[in-house]
Amino acid sequence: MWLFNAPPIEPLRVKYHFELTSAWLEQLQKSAVHFPNGSGAFVSAEGLIITNQHIAEGALQKASSAKQDLLKAGFYAKTRAEELKCPGLSVDILISIENVTAQINAAIKPGMSIEESLAARKTTISAIEKGSFDKTGLRSTVTTLYQGSEYHLYRYKRFTDLRLVFAPEQQAAMFGGDPDNFEFPRYDLDLAFLRAYENGQPAKVDHFLKIGFQGTHENELVFVAGHPGRTNRSLTVAELEYLRDVHIPRSIAYLNLNETLMTAWSARSSENTRKAQDELLTVQNARKLHYGRYEALLTPELFARKKKEESTLQEFARTHSDLNDAVPAWEEIAKAQRTLAKQYASLYAVELYISNVTTIKLARYILRAVAEKQKPSGERMREFRDSNLPNIEQAILADVPLDRDFEELKLAIYFLNLVQEFGVDHPLCTATLAGKSPSKRAFELIEQSKFGDSAFRKRVYAMPPGEFAQLDDPILTLLRGIDEEGRNLRKNTERQNEIKEQAYAKIAKVRYAKDGVASAPDASSTLRLCFGTTKGYEEGGHAIEAFTTVAGLYARSAEHKSREPFDLPPSWSTAKDKLDPHVPLNFVSTCDIVGGNSGSPIVNKEGALVGVVFDQNLPSLIGDYIYSDTQARAISVGIRGIVAALRTVYRADELLKELTGTPHADQPEKQGGT
Amino acid sequence: MWLFNAPPIEPLRVKYHFELTSAWLEQLQKSAVHFPNGSGAFVSAEGLIITNQHIAEGALQKASSAKQDLLKAGFYAKTRAEELKCPGLSVDILISIENVTAQINAAIKPGMSIEESLAARKTTISAIEKGSFDKTGLRSTVTTLYQGSEYHLYRYKRFTDLRLVFAPEQQAAMFGGDPDNFEFPRYDLDLAFLRAYENGQPAKVDHFLKIGFQGTHENELVFVAGHPGRTNRSLTVAELEYLRDVHIPRSIAYLNLNETLMTAWSARSSENTRKAQDELLTVQNARKLHYGRYEALLTPELFARKKKEESTLQEFARTHSDLNDAVPAWEEIAKAQRTLAKQYASLYAVELYISNVTTIKLARYILRAVAEKQKPSGERMREFRDSNLPNIEQAILADVPLDRDFEELKLAIYFLNLVQEFGVDHPLCTATLAGKSPSKRAFELIEQSKFGDSAFRKRVYAMPPGEFAQLDDPILTLLRGIDEEGRNLRKNTERQNEIKEQAYAKIAKVRYAKDGVASAPDASSTLRLCFGTTKGYEEGGHAIEAFTTVAGLYARSAEHKSREPFDLPPSWSTAKDKLDPHVPLNFVSTCDIVGGNSGSPIVNKEGALVGVVFDQNLPSLIGDYIYSDTQARAISVGIRGIVAALRTVYRADELLKELTGTPHADQPEKQGGT
Repeated sequence: MWLFNAPPIEPLRVKYHFELTSAWLEQLQKSAVHFPNGSGAFVSAEGLIITNQHIAEGALQKASSAKQDLLKAGFYAKTRAEELKCPGLSVDILISIENVTAQINAAIKPGMSIEESLAARKTTISAIEKGSFDKTGLRSTVTTLYQGSEYHLYRYKRFTDLRLVFAPEQQAAMFGGDPDNFEFPRYDLDLAFLRAYENGQPAKVDHFLKIGFQGTHENELVFVAGHPGRTNRSLTVAELEYLRDVHIPRSIAYLNLNETLMTAWSARSSENTRKAQDELLTVQNARKLHYGRYEALLTPELFARKKKEESTLQEFARTHSDLNDAVPAWEEIAKAQRTLAKQYASLYAVELYISNVTTIKLARYILRAVAEKQKPSGERMREFRDSNLPNIEQAILADVPLDRDFEELKLAIYFLNLVQEFGVDHPLCTATLAGKSPSKRAFELIEQSKFGDSAFRKRVYAMPPGEFAQLDDPILTLLRGIDEEGRNLRKNTERQNEIKEQAYAKIAKVRYAKDGVASAPDASSTLRLCFGTTKGYEEGGHAIEAFTTVAGLYARSAEHKSREPFDLPPSWSTAKDKLDPHVPLNFVSTCDIVGGNSGSPIVNKEGALVGVVFDQNLPSLIGDYIYSDTQARAISVGIRGIVAALRTVYRADELLKELTGTPHADQPEKQGGT
Repeated sequence: MWLFNAPPIEPLRVKYHFELTSAWLEQLQKSAVHFPNGSGAFVSAEGLIITNQHIAEGALQKASSAKQDLLKAGFYAKTRAEELKCPGLSVDILISIENVTAQINAAIKPGMSIEESLAARKTTISAIEKGSFDKTGLRSTVTTLYQGSEYHLYRYKRFTDLRLVFAPEQQAAMFGGDPDNFEFPRYDLDLAFLRAYENGQPAKVDHFLKIGFQGTHENELVFVAGHPGRTNRSLTVAELEYLRDVHIPRSIAYLNLNETLMTAWSARSSENTRKAQDELLTVQNARKLHYGRYEALLTPELFARKKKEESTLQEFARTHSDLNDAVPAWEEIAKAQRTLAKQYASLYAVELYISNVTTIKLARYILRAVAEKQKPSGERMREFRDSNLPNIEQAILADVPLDRDFEELKLAIYFLNLVQEFGVDHPLCTATLAGKSPSKRAFELIEQSKFGDSAFRKRVYAMPPGEFAQLDDPILTLLRGIDEEGRNLRKNTERQNEIKEQAYAKIAKVRYAKDGVASAPDASSTLRLCFGTTKGYEEGGHAIEAFTTVAGLYARSAEHKSREPFDLPPSWSTAKDKLDPHVPLNFVSTCDIVGGNSGSPIVNKEGALVGVVFDQNLPSLIGDYIYSDTQARAISVGIRGIVAALRTVYRADELLKELTGTPHADQPEKQGGT
């Protein structure tokens, strides 16, 4: 997961005799787009973006209604006029990166307390971001790398008017559903096209990927440019133990609660199914992810390796006088983790889980934005600083319908978790439940609050603070009651993270001194370049081939007698005889990816698009903690499958024309090879 | 939930002008049969038994294979020769009840310690059971009633050769699946017929229910004879708090873990679906039950009512000198509950959850049976006393195929729960996981152990104890390692239960002294008589009618576009036009039932069968703690729906002939009324 400003020129030259040029890199960097929940890429000069259907899923669901279920039916705009607005959705394009480590470190003076250094860093970061925005007009964000030993300023151009061009039926995009998620072989057309607009017109973009119609082949060198969310490869043993003993098991319990109750609710009617689908898939996906990570963390060998690594580093620090100040760093982190473990349940309940209820999340955005906007940007809660306030305001004002029944269910789940976690007599429970049972209280709050209504939110967000303070709403009353506790929990978390950041920075220096070259930093939702080869693997003694085919899709459906989630949409059933069964559909590569990479373009040496990443396999989940390419694989939709589907299944001729210019000449669908 | 030896003669006379006679009662009592997991009734002189499909479900699954899925396809034996053996399944018929309270109390001498009184009671009970069996040849069990203020000896005749006669497709029996479970309106043909055999011939029985072909009608007095498993209506506030704060939330967490992982595994292939179906349904059912109870226990009014009741009783005890010894009883119970709460996680892990893995359950049965059989019956672990040993041996020796993959999944779930509950460094985890991750260790144990093989079990169960002690098997090694801890936990639980039993007996005396008449005791899996009326109810301001119809079934399926679990089997799709749409299918009554009542006959004043109970609605789950008939309802399959299905959908003419003698005359299917 290499940085675009520290690309793997040497490894590529040595291992693959490939010369990475800055022009090649710039073309890929500026073609790549960042969705709030994933990645994508421009594929035409007119702002056409390719990504996963599951990245566009939220937008599809918001644009759906009881009458027209776009997730289910899919969508194709034959003309520009038919392209469908996606309110609330935006993408960012990375324009430039600047290393600002020295500036930030200069703000931290020797002898500062934790609170002082934290405040100094926040103020400096905020000033750098604001200065950059004022100067360039670009959205500017400082990113912490190498656990705080470097800070880079990322500048983005944002497109806020996105319109849906094409999405297949969910049945095709997520064929195999939760059972096949994180598995391979796989047969998904997890694909969507959107278009960026500017001033009401399709955006004119200078950088976009050309299409590699020939696809990829076994052992070919391929590259992924995307936004991996988070890895934990440099964590200390103490922090890994915290993940294993606190964070993951508690998250699993919470996910299980959500999954069972959402599944049960969802099954009561087709309408419920539609309403819950998006969030339920998110929960199921998180469940597979967390169980996979849990299994990895419960593997004693992993800890044995990490412990050995750690004691080697500690020994190195002890025996090098210029690194002696790093010796206590591991214990400092361990101590901070113990503090974080103690307040884990409270922090998650008060600050995080409650935001799963959208009505409450939006009400709290308003409550806090009103208060925070009165402070200088650098002193605000992080999400309300100037550089992020537009995101918050977009969410507050978005005219997205909230389903009361589903909101009630989610709030009841929240309360159930609360009483399970703290016991019903805990002040947090008595204050929030107000003498009611979880379901009754959830019903009452959602029915009586007005925050589900976007016009109401717009009106109250515009109120002067004094008037807003007088506003009476049951959800606001609840939120006001826990606001101070939430702020204190957040503050203490930040304090502990600051302690850790300083300690990790010291450890990073030891690692650099010992190993000589800096490896890529842990993922941080910023643009990264990965490379690898298209390649199968072994599992349980069986060889798993690198490619699946169109024929395999029909076979897998037949194996399950076309039962959900292995049923095919009518478009695919009808097209069966017209499709070449040998066309590759999905493929795996050794590219090192994690969540956040969904929708990433996968390109060949010419920088041409040969697929779109949409998943990783279960054995790759250990990659959260340790890099491995034995079994770990990225799963992509292949370009040849995409073209075959667009042409034969969806007859999306206009779209194909835009991708190709000459749609009937370049396509090797009926030729040999993979 | 009245006792058959203390029937509600007076209430029925006063409220319904109905004279309960002993002949009427005896006929119902001896027609009622007790399955290990529910109820049923004889409906012919040739041993034909009616019950629910979900009671016979385990047997159907055991008799199924990858080739022939009886759960899915249903089953009908046109001739006796085709009737299908159900190995391991048995039923008991209650022959007589004797009050043995005085005998048992006489064994408890003043001044005995808890241990001494517990041992004395166990020995006396064991002696009474053995004496009764030796004298009558009937299986004899002493049941504790009124929390230990009474003991009754129940004598049963057991039939161990049961054969399947008829079961509909699971789609029809559980139409609506988990989403409609505990709900009404409902449209399930949750029905099965089995036949008891003796000496290889159909059993000749003197008592069986005649069929009430006319069905029931709104406001009619109806009776249920069945085996409600457990209610908790006399519990102290401290014990209810223990349920609310310890038992239910922990059970929910465990059920959630099972449901998510079993569902995910089940969905990977049709074979997995078949293998997991039975246990997954059990888990989903338990989940609805526990959430329903949790919601009830989290209702502050319930506790307010219980606290008021309790302080009135306490005041009564304080102010009546002959009841003064009951004053400390509540605190004694509270103290015992605190002790039980402390060892809850260990007891459940070591003694209970591990038995969900059938291979391990059976291995432990053998390990312990070998040891326990060397002691006198009264000193053994409860399940190994003489009166229950045949059940254990039946399970050990049953030639039921165990699926390794599913066993591995269940064992991995067990280990995951263990590390979540105790942390991976807890001795229980290090000892059982032996340095492996949960999945790897589960795989290794199941693959390497021989206890999944019934021939192996048979052979080792026959070994002399000395030889058995030398036996080497990885599961045996694991079980030997936790055996002592398990026995200690069980012993301490029994000790606390003895303390509670003595305290509850004192409270029961106070209640009797204060309220004058004894109400029915809490359910205890023994035969009980309930009465009520066929009657709809109100929910969320809507009136819910007492009956659903055949037309309603087709409508509900259409509403869900025939998607699982609202799909109809071909038999029902085909029969649609031939069925009278107005025939009632399911109905609700105010009869007071809980789990264990499934399969219970529901009869009219003439004692004729008008339906089979198969479920209760969600509002009735509060009935665990407080009796209520406002919204609480029992849900039954109506006899008219049963007859229509057998005749028109399944063409089960021979079965109908046996039920009716004159199948074409008595049936009012095409006439009016309900």
